[in-house]
Amino acid sequence: MNTTTMVLDKVNNTEDLKKLSIEEMNILSEEIRELIMKKVNTTGGHLGPNLGIVEATIALHYVFNTPQDKLVFDVSHQCYPHKILTGRKEGFTDPDKYLKYSGYTAPEESEYDLFKVGHTSTSVSLAVGLAKARDLRGAKENVIALIGDGSLSGGEAFEGLDNAATLNSNIIIIVNDNDMSIAENQGGLYSNLRELRETNGKAENNFFKTLGFDYYYVDNGNNVESLINVFKEVKDTTRPTVVHIHTQKGKGCHNAEIDKESYHWILPGTLSNNNQETSNIESYESITADYILKKRDEDSTIIAITPATPGVSGFTKEFRSKLGKNFTDVGIAEQHAVAYASGLAKNGAKPILAVMSSFIQRAYDQLSQDLALNNTPATILVFWGGITGADATHLTKYDIPLISNIPNLVYLAPTNKEEYIKMLDWSTSQREHSVIIRVPATQVISTGIDDKTDYSILNKYEITEQGSEIAILGLGNFYQLGKDVKKLIQEKLDINPTLINPKFITGLDEELLNSLKNNHKLVITLEDGALDGGFGEKIASFFGASEMKVLNFGAKKEFTDRTSLEELYKRYHLTPELIIEDITKSL
Amino acid sequence: MNTTTMVLDKVNNTEDLKKLSIEEMNILSEEIRELIMKKVNTTGGHLGPNLGIVEATIALHYVFNTPQDKLVFDVSHQCYPHKILTGRKEGFTDPDKYLKYSGYTAPEESEYDLFKVGHTSTSVSLAVGLAKARDLRGAKENVIALIGDGSLSGGEAFEGLDNAATLNSNIIIIVNDNDMSIAENQGGLYSNLRELRETNGKAENNFFKTLGFDYYYVDNGNNVESLINVFKEVKDTTRPTVVHIHTQKGKGCHNAEIDKESYHWILPGTLSNNNQETSNIESYESITADYILKKRDEDSTIIAITPATPGVSGFTKEFRSKLGKNFTDVGIAEQHAVAYASGLAKNGAKPILAVMSSFIQRAYDQLSQDLALNNTPATILVFWGGITGADATHLTKYDIPLISNIPNLVYLAPTNKEEYIKMLDWSTSQREHSVIIRVPATQVISTGIDDKTDYSILNKYEITEQGSEIAILGLGNFYQLGKDVKKLIQEKLDINPTLINPKFITGLDEELLNSLKNNHKLVITLEDGALDGGFGEKIASFFGASEMKVLNFGAKKEFTDRTSLEELYKRYHLTPELIIEDITKSL
Repeated sequence: MNTTTMVLDKVNNTEDLKKLSIEEMNILSEEIRELIMKKVNTTGGHLGPNLGIVEATIALHYVFNTPQDKLVFDVSHQCYPHKILTGRKEGFTDPDKYLKYSGYTAPEESEYDLFKVGHTSTSVSLAVGLAKARDLRGAKENVIALIGDGSLSGGEAFEGLDNAATLNSNIIIIVNDNDMSIAENQGGLYSNLRELRETNGKAENNFFKTLGFDYYYVDNGNNVESLINVFKEVKDTTRPTVVHIHTQKGKGCHNAEIDKESYHWILPGTLSNNNQETSNIESYESITADYILKKRDEDSTIIAITPATPGVSGFTKEFRSKLGKNFTDVGIAEQHAVAYASGLAKNGAKPILAVMSSFIQRAYDQLSQDLALNNTPATILVFWGGITGADATHLTKYDIPLISNIPNLVYLAPTNKEEYIKMLDWSTSQREHSVIIRVPATQVISTGIDDKTDYSILNKYEITEQGSEIAILGLGNFYQLGKDVKKLIQEKLDINPTLINPKFITGLDEELLNSLKNNHKLVITLEDGALDGGFGEKIASFFGASEMKVLNFGAKKEFTDRTSLEELYKRYHLTPELIIEDITKSL
Repeated sequence: MNTTTMVLDKVNNTEDLKKLSIEEMNILSEEIRELIMKKVNTTGGHLGPNLGIVEATIALHYVFNTPQDKLVFDVSHQCYPHKILTGRKEGFTDPDKYLKYSGYTAPEESEYDLFKVGHTSTSVSLAVGLAKARDLRGAKENVIALIGDGSLSGGEAFEGLDNAATLNSNIIIIVNDNDMSIAENQGGLYSNLRELRETNGKAENNFFKTLGFDYYYVDNGNNVESLINVFKEVKDTTRPTVVHIHTQKGKGCHNAEIDKESYHWILPGTLSNNNQETSNIESYESITADYILKKRDEDSTIIAITPATPGVSGFTKEFRSKLGKNFTDVGIAEQHAVAYASGLAKNGAKPILAVMSSFIQRAYDQLSQDLALNNTPATILVFWGGITGADATHLTKYDIPLISNIPNLVYLAPTNKEEYIKMLDWSTSQREHSVIIRVPATQVISTGIDDKTDYSILNKYEITEQGSEIAILGLGNFYQLGKDVKKLIQEKLDINPTLINPKFITGLDEELLNSLKNNHKLVITLEDGALDGGFGEKIASFFGASEMKVLNFGAKKEFTDRTSLEELYKRYHLTPELIIEDITKSL
């Protein structure tokens, strides 16, 4: 790239932007693109969505008077150009400040960012609220929601559109149609979007018009001038309005234009290494994919499901292609995904739905009503559950409180490969329970010995190392931490604690727990998730009226935001040393 | 009504139905209607939805080969005619058996009922699952979802439709359009449904066609013959198909035809008393409505919101009319309702969203991401939270585990009118927190003395009666139970326990709890909700490593189904006598 980014030097805020000529804005687009590629190639991050939205972001800030006019980003992983134009360009020009700003909109960074957002399909509803509040206050600003075509499949987006259409005042919804979700788009809606693109917005069938919106179409959504013209036209409209813009995801980066899925989000260095080697190391993702393929060869009713996030679970393009009709990507539609799985199970198929911990949150009621209440034998795999240093919008520590307090569900926590496979075997062969497995979010641990456990005997914990005085319940990911704690207790306190692998998150092994009373005085619980509403509290409640002391270890109830795991483990006392300190205090 | 139901006598199952002439089916429709009115007027229940769907139910069972062909009801509160035709007519003809069958579909009653369903907007997703499983198995049955127009606004329904449209095989979605949700329909979609009704299904704008469905319209959805003709036409279709039928809600009952909202669900006796007196007894619903009206007169940014269930919160027609633009019914769209409230609060308005405990479940991710993460100062009122003898689909005991484990949210539990009003005052005047209030699900208790608590000091419990040895934490609805327990302890155990009103569900008053250690040895917690993931477990965990014993009282994690409250209180030890027994054991 050019080392002198001439136009951007003049642009420190949106006022500066308004002084540029169209030609300068075209140059600025290229400059921003170069900066984003360089930055993302260094830190990793969302590439394709940001490259596609550069011109639209410039045109929006050129035409509208942000932040008085209010701009809400859906998911907000396409906000990098916006950040560059709203006082935060140092986060892209200065490598030392690459990590200073969040990859999502963040009100604490700038008044141009309205909401902290990272889950999809929320922007329209939030914008309807902003617009209605404006009307109640008698104010006049424009309210704009920027939503990608992929996010439109999410139910919350539809609820928002349905309501926005009746607002009877100013709301402008920019539909950024790049013909892609993270992977390919799925759903009937997308055939209509295609029809609209192919007819330059003139097709008789028009989803947005059926809901009552005024409708505008921009075929070249990467042309600043076209965008400016349309945005000027709709500015200060008094009607709910959709501007459907056709953009190119990954624009300006050859590989990202060709392989939109792989370059949606990239790891550091992806753009500099032309041929990244595919990792051949076994992972729980690869174990899952291999398992499903093998199982499908034996049973044609096995069906794998993803809600638009195949990468989370190792559902590669090759895997999907091999599965064929035994695979469904439902699009961004977690609610449907769960109910769909329930319907499949009810009618004799064996669905395996894979979903990231943070996104299963979008389907609580479906887990409860469509699934648990009906005891349909679907299998749900929750990936990435655990405490992480992620953004506040993508925390994965709430799945245990979310799932484990719903009746009937069997939520399992394997601690190694063999347990995981045995649990999959059991779940897909039984017809009595809805089973959820918290796939270990660790490196693969293999005992090399087949697990012989009969998981149809629910809530049976395993004492893996019998000892006395202290019992350690190491749940799932934290079973290994339990082992480390045991070792340190032996060294430091001259006590040989009992180590227990609970395996079942959703129930208490009352017999085993009662038996501990004989020769233990302290039980400690270790869970890789939020304590509030989680596993450990149930153990504490169980022993509440007894002489047994209980210490619960896990995460505090708080939204952390890109806080390092090291810092979190320190804060939550999740190292063997800190755990021993707490044990010593309570003995 | 006629005492001899001539045609129905011949119809004991769907095979019998297939032998009837059109004329007999017309008579049968009237007979079924009469039975439903008589039964519902005795037991209470859903009236309007069932009266409207009689002919369609007859036609469906006449044309299709249920239960081989699979029929999924949305919400299923319109399944009474279906139950009458599928072997359960005694539940409507024999007053002694009026309570034998559930008011919703129930697989345990009949193979004709596929799912236990009571929340809206799920049928299409469930049906897509059934259809896909059929295809994987190589079977050929028809799969039919019956969904009301009101349910179409729910996001899960849209996710389902979007996916159903791409199924590329047989799925038939009957849209039962009676131009009503529980109250009036809300949303842009309904203008399209109206357009379709007014053009006999021929309007150019067609929501269903934009998604890719084959589309059929039946203008008289209460004409058996018309329905049979269309159903015969679509039977065994190999394409995703929508049959849009225009029915009359409440048909055959004059009052229910005129006032569709009031006769959606009725209390026993409603049809026999021509002029039911409106109750003038003060309730938490009337207190809420009065509060909002008064507040709005002082502040034009106050806005009340309901997700299509105004009756839950006392938002009467008069109330709604008085509020005018300061009221929004978003339709069945809980996800949108929460995000909308967040947007309103962000832009300076003061939203008050009222929702039933069982339905707030549909918005977990929005509570977490759109609301809590952004700390927007919206007020949410959760109505009817507590243990009840309701249907399994409408339990209201899970709101505490659902809400209280989400960071940032302040969830309050008032125990009387004055606390409730003070909490409302605080919530609507502050700008720092998203506040949820669990409106007491009890008769109104009034102290007559203004509550002076400063709720901006979070997590401060109140010791209302100082004692020793035993401390009773009586949360919200169960504070009165706490008082009764205290009294019985004094009588039976000669101990004067401390009584505490926690008020805050979402945090621990660590200072107060620690102070109890001085002169108490047992803490008991009482909560009107599920124990798992709830309030009491957190108290148990807090005291886990201390000498303090803790007993948690509340509901077990289980779906109960029309089990009497008396039985549940006995099962969960929620009477003073049973509580004392447990206390005695642990002392």
